Amino acid sequence: MSSLYATRMGIIPRSFVREILKVTQDPQVISFAGGLPNPRFFPAKEIAGAAALALAEDDGAALQYGTTEGYAPLREFIAERYRRNDGLDVTADEILITNGSQQGLDLVGKAFIDKQDAIAIERPGYLGAIQAFSAYEPEFHPVPLLEDGVDLGRLAEVLRTRRVKFFHTVINFQNPSGISYSESRRHELAELLRPYDTLVIEDDPYKELRFEGTPGPSMRRFLGDRAILLGSFSKIVAPGLRMGWICAPREILDRLVVAKQACDLHSNWFCQRMLHRFLADHDIDQHVATIRAAYRRQKDAMLAAIRAHFPAEVGFTRPEGGMFVWATLPTQLLAVELFEHAAREKVVFVPGTPFFVDGGGTHNMRLNFSNADEDKIEEGIARLGRIITKLLNRTGGSE
Amino acid sequence: MSSLYATRMGIIPRSFVREILKVTQDPQVISFAGGLPNPRFFPAKEIAGAAALALAEDDGAALQYGTTEGYAPLREFIAERYRRNDGLDVTADEILITNGSQQGLDLVGKAFIDKQDAIAIERPGYLGAIQAFSAYEPEFHPVPLLEDGVDLGRLAEVLRTRRVKFFHTVINFQNPSGISYSESRRHELAELLRPYDTLVIEDDPYKELRFEGTPGPSMRRFLGDRAILLGSFSKIVAPGLRMGWICAPREILDRLVVAKQACDLHSNWFCQRMLHRFLADHDIDQHVATIRAAYRRQKDAMLAAIRAHFPAEVGFTRPEGGMFVWATLPTQLLAVELFEHAAREKVVFVPGTPFFVDGGGTHNMRLNFSNADEDKIEEGIARLGRIITKLLNRTGGSE
Repeated sequence: MSSLYATRMGIIPRSFVREILKVTQDPQVISFAGGLPNPRFFPAKEIAGAAALALAEDDGAALQYGTTEGYAPLREFIAERYRRNDGLDVTADEILITNGSQQGLDLVGKAFIDKQDAIAIERPGYLGAIQAFSAYEPEFHPVPLLEDGVDLGRLAEVLRTRRVKFFHTVINFQNPSGISYSESRRHELAELLRPYDTLVIEDDPYKELRFEGTPGPSMRRFLGDRAILLGSFSKIVAPGLRMGWICAPREILDRLVVAKQACDLHSNWFCQRMLHRFLADHDIDQHVATIRAAYRRQKDAMLAAIRAHFPAEVGFTRPEGGMFVWATLPTQLLAVELFEHAAREKVVFVPGTPFFVDGGGTHNMRLNFSNADEDKIEEGIARLGRIITKLLNRTGGSE
Repeated sequence: MSSLYATRMGIIPRSFVREILKVTQDPQVISFAGGLPNPRFFPAKEIAGAAALALAEDDGAALQYGTTEGYAPLREFIAERYRRNDGLDVTADEILITNGSQQGLDLVGKAFIDKQDAIAIERPGYLGAIQAFSAYEPEFHPVPLLEDGVDLGRLAEVLRTRRVKFFHTVINFQNPSGISYSESRRHELAELLRPYDTLVIEDDPYKELRFEGTPGPSMRRFLGDRAILLGSFSKIVAPGLRMGWICAPREILDRLVVAKQACDLHSNWFCQRMLHRFLADHDIDQHVATIRAAYRRQKDAMLAAIRAHFPAEVGFTRPEGGMFVWATLPTQLLAVELFEHAAREKVVFVPGTPFFVDGGGTHNMRLNFSNADEDKIEEGIARLGRIITKLLNRTGGSE
């Protein structure tokens, strides 16, 4: 039987994160593993109201088949938000509704990757992107992240030596590293890419979760129709709705629509209408401000706890937003070893290795701060700190 | 820019059906084109109630990320229905929730098709399957359909000469032909496939819409873990929810789960919980019986109208269920030519060619009877009959 599987099935990595999520059903476990929003802020009542309204409109049209492109008023809402918040000249017909931004990644892979095509990604890279693209069997070129964006010298090398279909970046509060591209790095990245026939995939699900610093311009500002933007309602409304979008020039969008037809005809029509109703009837900016303020406190709590409880040799990033801190353990301690000890004491995180397609990350850990409340964060980081200290103080190091 | 697209983008056919659907927004158009359920039977109020209940449960857990496999109680509901209605020994861990059965087709393609792998499909074949599989660039082997199933002699030839990964069949009330596999044809098909290392994909979205005749056994009964079953709530609840499933042996399901992670993490969690709530609190069998009775009347109305208004030279199938009649025009009249005349007179159908990967279908038309009420069906078929008669009576035939 196993001979029947396509070769890609030996290549797509299984999500370590999703496997950990199954373990964290135990309410006693403090989880820094998933990229889960804090459920305290889910607008469940407002969504229930929007659901009732959406179902009552147009004789239940929300329950019928819809167009592949998506519900027109929702597409217009997204386009209008790009125009207003980002000063981007986006029209509704440049928006395709997807099942979260994960489907955006899959569609980009489907539309652009032939087997062994070169693509450039960040190192460490977003696991969901690695999974989605792997299915199309590309040659990955991971380019190291520096403090304020990708290492442009290394990216230049890849672009010179390979015909790169696209560069994928999580441009704000990157997953897993938490770093953001500075304005100058964005500008330089655009200048570097400009002479090449290559696309940039700007994957930006955390954009609205900025606690401090200045938002940088979208790559679309610099590269126009060479930029494909991915967005999501998962972090600002709710992930269980699986609602995201692709923003791309019409010619590209048209191809992505055909790819999506082949995948699932169209995204959940009822939830598109319901979500639009919710967005039209409520102040989403106010809602996002509430989440942002809470996550900022949770991030501050995590950084304070790390300073208080982790040995000084553990490095960590100071994200300006998003959901993740990226920590680096001293060389004598492996993250997977720490994970095993920590899981036994009911605190979990994601060890760094799944974010590297070429090895690496063995001493890194991704710590999520959006899901747990502050007291849990303090307690979990203290627990982790005790274990790290104990393991570092072993005579002989890791045996 | 066009040089950046993957080669598959030149292969996936654009859905002619979905293009027609855009035209049929005009309420004056009588459409026999889509495979749309009759919206009169959408349980909009009951769904609204289920939505409110699902959102109130477990502190809004319906809005959080969920597992890739799907909501456990919904998976159990589906497994139990297979056990009760079909006598199949299915367990909940053999069920993966998908975005309609279209995503089931995509996942099967992703998991099993390497470029140029041979797969066998029906001729005419289901357009959605052709689209989904095309993305993985197989070598299609279309095998003609006879009155009660696939031509086994022709399928035997393909199996002898090619290493076939799977045979895809819409086993009941096939789309587009409307034909169903007889019990003996199913049995013979299983015997034919048995010696080969090949799977059968039993795509069965219309199963519960049987008006007459006896339901045949599933191929799983004969072939066990060599059968992958695809199902859908689109025809028995509502397509706008995009809720379907794959039923496969655990080892295969496990691989399909990895493929789905890469596609979109998991299906809409809120709608899974809502749908389960709806199914738990209402009598779905009663609901299906209502739909079935109405579609039977609609089918009868269509066949009666065809007998009354189409020239005797037009052949047509008499489906025992489902949504479609398949008509065959006399050789001097092309279905696309008829389509052009008909569209001008505001009645549309799907010409046969998109259902053939190797040419053919030029004189066929797919007529949907589930979407329109009986008076519209009579009116639309009468209009079509007048146009067919006029075109056939032209001196010189089609110029």
